[in-house]
Amino acid sequence: MANIGKDHIVSAYGDELVALAQLISEMGGQVEVAIENGTKALLKLDRELADVTIIADQRIDDMQRKIDDMAVSMIARRQPMASDLRSIITSIHVAADLERVGDMAKQLARRSLKLEGLSLQPTFYNGVKNMTALVLRQIKEALDAYAARDEAMAIEVCNRDDEVDAMHTSLFRELLTYMMEDPRNITPCTHLLFCAKSLERVGDHATNIAERAYYLKTGKQLTSDVQELHRTQIKP
Amino acid sequence: MANIGKDHIVSAYGDELVALAQLISEMGGQVEVAIENGTKALLKLDRELADVTIIADQRIDDMQRKIDDMAVSMIARRQPMASDLRSIITSIHVAADLERVGDMAKQLARRSLKLEGLSLQPTFYNGVKNMTALVLRQIKEALDAYAARDEAMAIEVCNRDDEVDAMHTSLFRELLTYMMEDPRNITPCTHLLFCAKSLERVGDHATNIAERAYYLKTGKQLTSDVQELHRTQIKP
Repeated sequence: MANIGKDHIVSAYGDELVALAQLISEMGGQVEVAIENGTKALLKLDRELADVTIIADQRIDDMQRKIDDMAVSMIARRQPMASDLRSIITSIHVAADLERVGDMAKQLARRSLKLEGLSLQPTFYNGVKNMTALVLRQIKEALDAYAARDEAMAIEVCNRDDEVDAMHTSLFRELLTYMMEDPRNITPCTHLLFCAKSLERVGDHATNIAERAYYLKTGKQLTSDVQELHRTQIKP
Repeated sequence: MANIGKDHIVSAYGDELVALAQLISEMGGQVEVAIENGTKALLKLDRELADVTIIADQRIDDMQRKIDDMAVSMIARRQPMASDLRSIITSIHVAADLERVGDMAKQLARRSLKLEGLSLQPTFYNGVKNMTALVLRQIKEALDAYAARDEAMAIEVCNRDDEVDAMHTSLFRELLTYMMEDPRNITPCTHLLFCAKSLERVGDHATNIAERAYYLKTGKQLTSDVQELHRTQIKP
């Protein structure tokens, strides 16, 4: 990120570009913490952590508005060149994705409050736990790829989304079998089904951010051909 | 919409603003049809209509990219004044919301394909049917409020979102009872739970669009005070 804006003669403008990138990075950090807390609240049924996550969502929403306003104001005052303009507009999109991930964290926290008092067997959680770990990694690496404009890492995040989807499908089936075994499992497992869906969507947002990182670096949309090529290069 | 751009001396620029508004309106029309088709495919288990909806989503995604590109290119070439800039940036946000609604339509269509062959009792559908009607109205009026910059209609859409949420909550409970009554209902009702969730999210996107319409007209964020005041004025 240190290089962003270095080519601009008007240093105040360069400073603004750096400040915008820092805001996104800060928002990304907050969202990572929110998803970590939201999933931890869910897995440990930790009411306090759930409250923290729900309250944090307001700050994340405020961050999005701040980034939006800053981006619009920069465009209005500086007449950015095409490449800067594209990167400023991309900040708006990435902030929107991050805001949605914050919402997902809040939803996970809310589900954890609903799960309190319901008879949850620890085995129900195994799939959710694995999915959580993978999705956290996805959002972290997507943000890293975006901050560093790292094309290869962006492709890897997009490729790994298939794993998230496969995990979601298998978890879906597993939870249905618990529900069929015993009607008392229906309510808690339904909540877990929605948690799995939220996690899958966090994965989708990570993919969106990675795709934007790829586009900013290469100027091209990430196609399935490129993804496939990358797969074969990694695993020959 | 006919008035947009009338104050601009450079007529080509005014033409571009009108063209952008028309693109949004066209995309809105496509998304309305997609949601109508998606819900109809679900309620009638109509495989053909499901396929049509799934294919249409690609066109909707393309429209979003087109609107994005046009907005960015207008900002880059014309140096829009603050109010125009805000409205151009808003197009990007509204197109993003519409793209998500298109995704929801596709998801409803996909669920209808999964529901084929599962034993669905017609009563399961009652709640989904009511929710569908309300959500279709929400997205339609949100788009009308946006196109006409109609502040009162925008507030009404936002206020009516509480009804969507209440309907979703009661439908959620109803479907859980069917699942508990008979384990054979678990799989079809789980799919319907997700359909209800998708419809609730379409309602959220309608609210987002209405909030943006309100902001464009008034320059202020829509607060709960304003919403409450509007409620008491409508129903004294």
